[in-house]
Amino acid sequence: MKYPNHLQKLIQVLKKLPGIGNRSAERFAFQLLEWPQEELTQFGDVVKDTSKSIHFCPVCGVLSEKETCGICSDKKRNTEVLCVIRSAREVFSLEATGEFKGLYHVLGGVLSPLEGIGPEQLKMESLFTRIAKGGISEIILALDSTLEGDATALYIKSELQHLPIKLTRLAFGIPMGSALDYVDGGTLARSFLGRNHF
Amino acid sequence: MKYPNHLQKLIQVLKKLPGIGNRSAERFAFQLLEWPQEELTQFGDVVKDTSKSIHFCPVCGVLSEKETCGICSDKKRNTEVLCVIRSAREVFSLEATGEFKGLYHVLGGVLSPLEGIGPEQLKMESLFTRIAKGGISEIILALDSTLEGDATALYIKSELQHLPIKLTRLAFGIPMGSALDYVDGGTLARSFLGRNHF
Repeated sequence: MKYPNHLQKLIQVLKKLPGIGNRSAERFAFQLLEWPQEELTQFGDVVKDTSKSIHFCPVCGVLSEKETCGICSDKKRNTEVLCVIRSAREVFSLEATGEFKGLYHVLGGVLSPLEGIGPEQLKMESLFTRIAKGGISEIILALDSTLEGDATALYIKSELQHLPIKLTRLAFGIPMGSALDYVDGGTLARSFLGRNHF
Repeated sequence: MKYPNHLQKLIQVLKKLPGIGNRSAERFAFQLLEWPQEELTQFGDVVKDTSKSIHFCPVCGVLSEKETCGICSDKKRNTEVLCVIRSAREVFSLEATGEFKGLYHVLGGVLSPLEGIGPEQLKMESLFTRIAKGGISEIILALDSTLEGDATALYIKSELQHLPIKLTRLAFGIPMGSALDYVDGGTLARSFLGRNHF
């Protein structure tokens, strides 16, 4: 006995959500069957309107509801410092730290030759154009501490080495509140290399 | 920095999916931001059309795309045996066993006084009406082996005890393919009580 046609379709679309396999999609679908029409309509409409209602800032790539984003149009921000990040999502956690008052540049990913992601697939060209316009004194690389993050950081470093711009990368080390014996060897090694005067 | 309005709305609706909390809903939402409009439209439309495209059979409560379901309208099924189940979802796994050729009755839940679910909240009345019409010789209770499942089974038993109908319940015991030392004590006890001649 097969699932009714529409149920199969519903499971297919739900499986497109990240990390959702057949079983979870089935669980979602059977739950949706019990929802009243108004909730289904609301859910469907919100999803459909997503790309209409949310835009990415054409300058920095951060999420915005207006033409330019709230960060780029904020006169109080320091336009001399640029923070380079992988995705628009990270802006929210970085802003929550309250430590950064400059502008952002979203790459839209990190270099990954295995997945066919080279500089052309990322917003590298627009980063270098922004820098070439001048007025930027420091570039902070807030990239993942992964192989791909390292490769991306090195690529940007090599492209910018002829320019008199300070290039920094977020510190690697022991996470706050962790006991030393729970920290992995790689992190511990990095924290030795990056040790500070105390 | 708060999420844009629409993103907040998107996260709110995604959180309504079963077992999805804030973190997962955020993950889904940021993924949806990258989908092309056509995929968003398809996703939204399929969800919205759910209650229009799928019906529950008015007789047995099984999912169907037509007026009466494929099982009730199948002339080859044994109309003398009725299998009582909690939800329409279970029909698919029961049908996959190929062991049952009778008809179904979906209760839409199990008795749970703590959650305010009494016989009135379930399709009990229609079950007893179906039985009262006659022609049924056996009722198989395919209910969960939980406290609520037991309570529901006992309730049906007490309601039917004056009728000359064979009432059975699915066997409890050791799952196929499991080693004895992995089976919990409750299951092992039930498998002793239900032991068979060999």
